[in-house]
Amino acid sequence: MNIDGDFGLLSPVSASPLVAALTGDHAVVAAILAVEAAWASVLEDAGLAPAGSAAVVAHAADPAHYDVASIAERAQGGGNPVIPLLAELRKNVKTADAERGHVGAGAAVHTSLTSQDVLDTALMVMIRNVRGTLLAEVKGTTTALAALAEHHTDTLCVGRSLTQHALPFTFGLRAAQWFQGIAAAARRLQSLELPVQFGGAGGTLASAAVLTGNSRLSPFDLADSLAAKLGLASAPAPWQTSRLAVTAVGDALAALSDSFGKMAADVLFLSRPEVAELGEPLAAGRGGSSAMPQKQNPVLSILVRSAALQVPGLAAQLHTAAANFNDERPDGAWHSEWPALRELLRLTLGAAAQLKELAGGLRVFPDAMRRNLDISGPLLLSEKVMAVVVPLLDTDHGEAKARLQAVVDETLQAPAGTHSEKEEQSLLYARLLREVVPADKLSDAELDALLDPANYVGEAVEIARRILAAFPEYAGNPVTTRIPKEANRG
Amino acid sequence: MNIDGDFGLLSPVSASPLVAALTGDHAVVAAILAVEAAWASVLEDAGLAPAGSAAVVAHAADPAHYDVASIAERAQGGGNPVIPLLAELRKNVKTADAERGHVGAGAAVHTSLTSQDVLDTALMVMIRNVRGTLLAEVKGTTTALAALAEHHTDTLCVGRSLTQHALPFTFGLRAAQWFQGIAAAARRLQSLELPVQFGGAGGTLASAAVLTGNSRLSPFDLADSLAAKLGLASAPAPWQTSRLAVTAVGDALAALSDSFGKMAADVLFLSRPEVAELGEPLAAGRGGSSAMPQKQNPVLSILVRSAALQVPGLAAQLHTAAANFNDERPDGAWHSEWPALRELLRLTLGAAAQLKELAGGLRVFPDAMRRNLDISGPLLLSEKVMAVVVPLLDTDHGEAKARLQAVVDETLQAPAGTHSEKEEQSLLYARLLREVVPADKLSDAELDALLDPANYVGEAVEIARRILAAFPEYAGNPVTTRIPKEANRG
Amino acid sequence: MNIDGDFGLLSPVSASPLVAALTGDHAVVAAILAVEAAWASVLEDAGLAPAGSAAVVAHAADPAHYDVASIAERAQGGGNPVIPLLAELRKNVKTADAERGHVGAGAAVHTSLTSQDVLDTALMVMIRNVRGTLLAEVKGTTTALAALAEHHTDTLCVGRSLTQHALPFTFGLRAAQWFQGIAAAARRLQSLELPVQFGGAGGTLASAAVLTGNSRLSPFDLADSLAAKLGLASAPAPWQTSRLAVTAVGDALAALSDSFGKMAADVLFLSRPEVAELGEPLAAGRGGSSAMPQKQNPVLSILVRSAALQVPGLAAQLHTAAANFNDERPDGAWHSEWPALRELLRLTLGAAAQLKELAGGLRVFPDAMRRNLDISGPLLLSEKVMAVVVPLLDTDHGEAKARLQAVVDETLQAPAGTHSEKEEQSLLYARLLREVVPADKLSDAELDALLDPANYVGEAVEIARRILAAFPEYAGNPVTTRIPKEANRG
Amino acid sequence: MNIDGDFGLLSPVSASPLVAALTGDHAVVAAILAVEAAWASVLEDAGLAPAGSAAVVAHAADPAHYDVASIAERAQGGGNPVIPLLAELRKNVKTADAERGHVGAGAAVHTSLTSQDVLDTALMVMIRNVRGTLLAEVKGTTTALAALAEHHTDTLCVGRSLTQHALPFTFGLRAAQWFQGIAAAARRLQSLELPVQFGGAGGTLASAAVLTGNSRLSPFDLADSLAAKLGLASAPAPWQTSRLAVTAVGDALAALSDSFGKMAADVLFLSRPEVAELGEPLAAGRGGSSAMPQKQNPVLSILVRSAALQVPGLAAQLHTAAANFNDERPDGAWHSEWPALRELLRLTLGAAAQLKELAGGLRVFPDAMRRNLDISGPLLLSEKVMAVVVPLLDTDHGEAKARLQAVVDETLQAPAGTHSEKEEQSLLYARLLREVVPADKLSDAELDALLDPANYVGEAVEIARRILAAFPEYAGNPVTTRIPKEANRG
Repeated sequence: MNIDGDFGLLSPVSASPLVAALTGDHAVVAAILAVEAAWASVLEDAGLAPAGSAAVVAHAADPAHYDVASIAERAQGGGNPVIPLLAELRKNVKTADAERGHVGAGAAVHTSLTSQDVLDTALMVMIRNVRGTLLAEVKGTTTALAALAEHHTDTLCVGRSLTQHALPFTFGLRAAQWFQGIAAAARRLQSLELPVQFGGAGGTLASAAVLTGNSRLSPFDLADSLAAKLGLASAPAPWQTSRLAVTAVGDALAALSDSFGKMAADVLFLSRPEVAELGEPLAAGRGGSSAMPQKQNPVLSILVRSAALQVPGLAAQLHTAAANFNDERPDGAWHSEWPALRELLRLTLGAAAQLKELAGGLRVFPDAMRRNLDISGPLLLSEKVMAVVVPLLDTDHGEAKARLQAVVDETLQAPAGTHSEKEEQSLLYARLLREVVPADKLSDAELDALLDPANYVGEAVEIARRILAAFPEYAGNPVTTRIPKEANRG
Repeated sequence: MNIDGDFGLLSPVSASPLVAALTGDHAVVAAILAVEAAWASVLEDAGLAPAGSAAVVAHAADPAHYDVASIAERAQGGGNPVIPLLAELRKNVKTADAERGHVGAGAAVHTSLTSQDVLDTALMVMIRNVRGTLLAEVKGTTTALAALAEHHTDTLCVGRSLTQHALPFTFGLRAAQWFQGIAAAARRLQSLELPVQFGGAGGTLASAAVLTGNSRLSPFDLADSLAAKLGLASAPAPWQTSRLAVTAVGDALAALSDSFGKMAADVLFLSRPEVAELGEPLAAGRGGSSAMPQKQNPVLSILVRSAALQVPGLAAQLHTAAANFNDERPDGAWHSEWPALRELLRLTLGAAAQLKELAGGLRVFPDAMRRNLDISGPLLLSEKVMAVVVPLLDTDHGEAKARLQAVVDETLQAPAGTHSEKEEQSLLYARLLREVVPADKLSDAELDALLDPANYVGEAVEIARRILAAFPEYAGNPVTTRIPKEANRG
Repeated sequence: MNIDGDFGLLSPVSASPLVAALTGDHAVVAAILAVEAAWASVLEDAGLAPAGSAAVVAHAADPAHYDVASIAERAQGGGNPVIPLLAELRKNVKTADAERGHVGAGAAVHTSLTSQDVLDTALMVMIRNVRGTLLAEVKGTTTALAALAEHHTDTLCVGRSLTQHALPFTFGLRAAQWFQGIAAAARRLQSLELPVQFGGAGGTLASAAVLTGNSRLSPFDLADSLAAKLGLASAPAPWQTSRLAVTAVGDALAALSDSFGKMAADVLFLSRPEVAELGEPLAAGRGGSSAMPQKQNPVLSILVRSAALQVPGLAAQLHTAAANFNDERPDGAWHSEWPALRELLRLTLGAAAQLKELAGGLRVFPDAMRRNLDISGPLLLSEKVMAVVVPLLDTDHGEAKARLQAVVDETLQAPAGTHSEKEEQSLLYARLLREVVPADKLSDAELDALLDPANYVGEAVEIARRILAAFPEYAGNPVTTRIPKEANRG
Repeated sequence: MNIDGDFGLLSPVSASPLVAALTGDHAVVAAILAVEAAWASVLEDAGLAPAGSAAVVAHAADPAHYDVASIAERAQGGGNPVIPLLAELRKNVKTADAERGHVGAGAAVHTSLTSQDVLDTALMVMIRNVRGTLLAEVKGTTTALAALAEHHTDTLCVGRSLTQHALPFTFGLRAAQWFQGIAAAARRLQSLELPVQFGGAGGTLASAAVLTGNSRLSPFDLADSLAAKLGLASAPAPWQTSRLAVTAVGDALAALSDSFGKMAADVLFLSRPEVAELGEPLAAGRGGSSAMPQKQNPVLSILVRSAALQVPGLAAQLHTAAANFNDERPDGAWHSEWPALRELLRLTLGAAAQLKELAGGLRVFPDAMRRNLDISGPLLLSEKVMAVVVPLLDTDHGEAKARLQAVVDETLQAPAGTHSEKEEQSLLYARLLREVVPADKLSDAELDALLDPANYVGEAVEIARRILAAFPEYAGNPVTTRIPKEANRG
């Protein structure tokens, strides 16, 4: 097939050599061959294949010998890539036998397996490989976030709900919340068992039962041995039509991607020019525009978000397949799993790399956080004013609340379009409150303190501490984490 | 609002009083009120509300007092149903206070909570309630399936892959595989923690910190107490923007629904007139047609399948929301969770009820299974023939395989359109094999045995046993399970 | 069934009497009954039912006579609501016949129809009803947007790409782009044919062929007559397994919802306190918080966005059903269409109402637009500077571009955290440019003009004009459209 | 980047050289370069670039000069592939200028364009290219189906609803219904306008307005000229944030894929061994198994179904993107479109090729159709019996219906497990009917005719004729279409 392959041109978030190496067609071929080679070794160990077969098969199964493009095209004939790959492998084993003066290694190739055994198991091997790298990337992110959470314990900002200013907040708590989302999802992904698949052509292990008929080993022993060689979990039974092991991977990747997407959405807003509380790390050649010389686009967050928007549909694809897994092997649902599963791995792995770079170099601008906090002025403390002042008034609870709400409403009527108008508005709020609550109940100093946002961050510090403590394995070593210097813009 | 409500007219799978009682608008209102009442109790216990307040609030929070339709309509104003419901509750508490000569119960209502605390927690309560019923329904199904697996240990049928006959199989193993899918998904759902949510307006517990300022208790203690009262899990911290607890529920329900859908797809095929291996339980008034008097539709499976086709997209909806959970409370993503989450509960609960009835009364027709198995005749044993005969031939492995493949191919050329042609074809296969392998290597009796499908079900029995053993909590008590009588049709 | 119905408690965007009236279970029952009544009239007109039958059926088919909850529950038995509803209808027709001294109206009920004929056609009737209202709501929005586009032709703001400031823009063009998205999607929805369905039990019109055997009319004539009575399109043939008519409705609603979501996303950002270019219309009781007295949430946009996030998955549900429409009527796919289709109607209709209110009362703050535009200062004009200045320099093109890029880069190095720093930065840019380009090539006045954003809005006016001209049927009558008064906040 | 590319290893349905050539990364690069080259030509034609520039750019834009893998990797920096590709193009244009002694072709490269203009337009070009090939493949399928519909006008089979036998049907009508689904969706795809995109950096055409300032042409003229050169539709205005043109493509592809999936689902069932009404075309090397020598899998249908299960989620992805298209260019949504759009093209194009082969060589087994029809025997005609016999009985309508239903019910009680039992059951039904209706009302010959399924196919022939007539452009030339020989199996 004389065509170029694809390199992720239309999926920049994951167009990296690392992602390609772990998830590309070549990686799939390598995983399939690894399964076949491990199986040969299982059979030889069990005395079910001639001594020396495993070494011959391992040699013949070197992925470098295989033409991925050709195998991909020939996969149409049988509907899966194992069939043409196996034909090549058998040929190569025959040659390798001949070259090495060995006989009968062919008996160790694919014996008693079926295509689905090999492909399900190979994909679990690929998932296992990706997971290791992915979680390492994630730990880079969470370590950086833990450091930010600690460094910015007291960095005041505004908390926003439904787009509007809600209450004083801290940037440390925001970082801790990002951490919590990511660490919880990562822990879930880490906890998943990735089981070996072995059921034979019809899912009854019939061929293996014949094969092991005179052996001390059962087909289940062979399965366990295969699992051990490949670093996968044993399975109590074939699961070829119960796809929980597959959908659980998709779900866990989706949950991880969600947590990435949440952080990216926040950074995208917070690094807008009108907000300017955060900035993406600057790097040569990144974030430029094809038309506007001054542009600096937050491209890391954008790419993470582009992935997070795609992932849920792909995870659903795995469930749709699972719900249509008819018969002992279904008529299309199985095949529909593969692209979705791989794309899930790619998008999360690609996004994790972007996010690590983002978290590790995030530029934080506390002055801007304070400036934005001040937009709302003391009105932001109305909830606290209610709680503190109502008991001080000489009326019943309902009447007191109504009086304070009237103060809020009157304040909100004042013009607040410009900086000076906003300052006027803040003063008005204080003055109106002063009129409502006598100084003997609340001194001027107490009123000032009441209206200071720094005095109303609640348990922000303790919440952040609890979050980090709940996921010690992701909190990293804050001592060694580089705290990004605060740059001078923003 | 003078309109009728909805009763599931367009979603027959879940249009039942049970589902309505557990998931309807009324149930949501009840859960919200339960959270507010529990909170009043927490506050009173902590000395943060007047003695007697909890009882007053509990009385006022009787769901019977609330006009669901009116609250639903007024929920548009603030974008969530807590706000109008709370207004009603406050009014009712005031009245109850007055009626009972109590003072100040209002201080126990919603104090330091925010809408999201209440709604997130209420939905967890609703999930908890549904889960209990749902898993009980599921256990009805799995118990029936375990009984079928044991009863049909030796019931021969054909295993099918990619729609075609693959190898001999047993109906016992098929039932066990259905069991495995369902039990594994149910166990996962059971294992989920359903956490309480408590963060206050901005997620900092600021109001609660003021409230508990002079108390021996922290806001975290209040959260734990609320969790305990509601039967939910404690949470280390507010999780208002980290939606793993929500998406995990959706994912687990989807996995369960997948397992339902897989079984339904099989039953739908196996109960077709051309196949007739299974029949849905008959019941008066079920499965009829508006036009065709003779029609008996497998409506239980159809409804289960209708749910299984819908669920994946709804679970994805929760992930899409989670990935867009910007700020400290997002601008639409939170709101988009609610309908999807409820519909997931409804569809799985409705489908579980249909499936329990299906599994409990499934009609099994072993004769038809055998008849279908015989369609493929001894050709179905070609894999075994290969494995057994190749070593008996006096040629090398490859040559021997080619010779046997030629036998298969020649056999497949014979006409096989009618019953008698099929019988001819089977005889032809045996005859051609006989020509290839000498009788001193394989006697006629051995050849007959080789071509008997009952001798090639491999580890079917042991696989089924292992599956049941792996999920003892779902295997039920087979002694008491009714084994459906095999009916006379099929 | 003694349960409450649902009223949209968890879906505030569509919890309105209008939506309920058009899409509720009651509306579905009414549509089914309308189809049956119209059919009776078709048969009577054709001389295939006794004279007077249509009137009797019409009387009996009054939706007020039917217990929606009971029908919903009984729909489980046959898997669809037509069956139990039909049983009631037949009973009522019998009674009505007796009451009116009429005989044989029963022969006009459902004769030669099948459940799917009735339900497919009834849902088309419901879609038709919703579409009319929906497009009227949409026209309210587009009329308001057209007025905004014209009123704000010259209102300068900043255009943003990838979250960052890109180029000068106008608010008029933004409104026109919102208009374009909505009007184009609405036109597409309007253009869809909503066909009648008539195929009979097996899709062959066999019963109808018997019925019309001695008539001058064919079954196709009856179908056309039914279409005419119901205001639907004729269909060349039954389409019971070709679901394009259904998926096209879902796709068109999704496209409309996308256009709503795009506008809502913009309004949500532009009405944030840090940006403050827009404000939602204020209304008593809207946008409040359960905890924070000062909160004004943009709840209209939030609800629209909550719908827009849900719609794509529901439209996909219709395609998944269509792709699984096996046999002459499928085993679950058909049933899975109904909830998705109705929810699509609800969400778009609900969102359209919110959006109309939003567009009609949108508060626009040109001063804030200008203030935000000035954040970027003249750097925003770098693209134009490149285009204009490069040809003026005495070097080759590449060298000239590099020199100007250096100016941009040097300017970007300057501190820009505060207002005065930003002003300094702007002056710096002008000064550096002055150094690069001699005054005889570009006078000071020309340089000033070059750096005035008002001089670089390109074809904004003409683009907006072209957009409005392309959709005259949605542009409304700008003379009578109320231009919202600009409020004093922002 | 030293990695292999991907060749579709995990997506066999579309792993073909044709699909790769039309949709691969290389094709995307080619389309981008085609847009830039066409733009250079537009500018030169307009006198806005030096004479000869277009030829230089066209030469430099030869896709063979570009390293796709490297561009893909560098696309991460700016988040899209246009930026690095453009850098290469500019370098190549400079070289080409030098080589040809030309000056200033660089001024014709990308001037006044932005990345989105180029990528949106390039993807439209790619869609246009794919669409042509796709519709040609589709026409191969529909032509074959039209021929089947005509050839099998009178081929009796059974119609099935909800998995059960419903009424007599014809295979000709089934083929016609498949045709209808596919042709209707294809016509819709064909009707879509594929518009050029041109808005410049901020969507205001500001740069182009400067460029054309002294020209007789407007930026809109340039856009129209670009559209004409690329074979795309003109657009009234930039549509960079109104994605209907994109989602409409996804929706149309999904509708087409749905129609493919429906046919594949039917073929998969109908070619099962127990049914055997159809067979996929046989071909060497297709449908084999890695383990079972006798297996013949319907791999064409399986691959088509594997695509149909994936497509809806991908089309939804485009809507999710469209609903999140904030600002003048969004922060991730745009990027999330690209992989989904391409995968949609790939899956439908790949599936179309499989389906064409399937439809062109479908093996049809009328004997099996008749055999399966006979499973239900005359009971299948109960609807007709009702219609014909009720008026003959001397009782009122309701009583007569009840009597006939009793006959059906009694018949259904008889054993029907074996062939002879089924024959007995058929005779029983006739005998019971005979008892109910006197021979003077219905002679024996008339009763026999009543119970002959060939007399109850209604308008099957006319429906098929109408369907073919409704889509003349897809009905092909039946004279030249090869009618597959009916093979001897089944």
